Amino acid sequence: MTKKDIEDLALELLSKPSSAYLATIDRNGFPHIRAIFNLRCSEKFPHPAEVIEEYEENPLTVYISTNTSSIKMKQIKENDNIAIYYSLPSKVKGIMLQGQAEILDDIELKEKIWVDDWVMYYPKGYTDPDFTILRLKPKYLKGWYKGHHELYLGD
Amino acid sequence: MTKKDIEDLALELLSKPSSAYLATIDRNGFPHIRAIFNLRCSEKFPHPAEVIEEYEENPLTVYISTNTSSIKMKQIKENDNIAIYYSLPSKVKGIMLQGQAEILDDIELKEKIWVDDWVMYYPKGYTDPDFTILRLKPKYLKGWYKGHHELYLGD
Repeated sequence: MTKKDIEDLALELLSKPSSAYLATIDRNGFPHIRAIFNLRCSEKFPHPAEVIEEYEENPLTVYISTNTSSIKMKQIKENDNIAIYYSLPSKVKGIMLQGQAEILDDIELKEKIWVDDWVMYYPKGYTDPDFTILRLKPKYLKGWYKGHHELYLGD
Repeated sequence: MTKKDIEDLALELLSKPSSAYLATIDRNGFPHIRAIFNLRCSEKFPHPAEVIEEYEENPLTVYISTNTSSIKMKQIKENDNIAIYYSLPSKVKGIMLQGQAEILDDIELKEKIWVDDWVMYYPKGYTDPDFTILRLKPKYLKGWYKGHHELYLGD
């Protein structure tokens, strides 16, 4: 598998499942996993994929919507090392993206990413102080498809 | 949600999906995620659920089959803190089990857990030195269903 093959697998998996799995490290030193929305799934979240120009410039960049008050935010403020896993179990394909999470407070970005249904999570809309966007620019990829393949992206 | 409700959610999710997600911590201090077989899915793995008496005594105990030479084994030997996530995305249900992984080398258990198809992974069968069983007796459960619910099981 070449670098391009791994990146192509990542781009395929980033666009498909509607959920992904985020692992953080908690204050007791244990990994902590939960499902997150995959905002790159254009079928479920049509706007973000269309509007965020950065996807074209940095195709592997991932945005995560979350409650500012969430446990994942508390964990990331203490340790920003994260991993996200995307998979198509039916095709035995998976990809892990690893790196440091960034906490963004960019109101224009929040407006672009905003999905109307999210008022159930953030009643005040994209200006809700409990609405936060995390960004991962991955430094390391690991793909599962006909064997394991790894790719360091560097800083 | 009572303690029983969380345990019931865990037992429901442990029995359903054919795969689960295991997070370890790697030597660089990052969480590392991959898909694993859910051996409790009796539809895909009929034998383990029927034969392992421990499931009746310790319903939340999880066994994981893996290659002895795998990266997850190297990581667990250095840091045995793990988490496993099981979910039914269509029902917005999820459960995380956290605790220390134990590396078992019990040939009788390996024989009970063995699935014939696994010769593709372990050519020598259940005695293959590259076949290892990991066990998690979780100390902490976190369930997602109509909100988050946590349960410490203690030692």
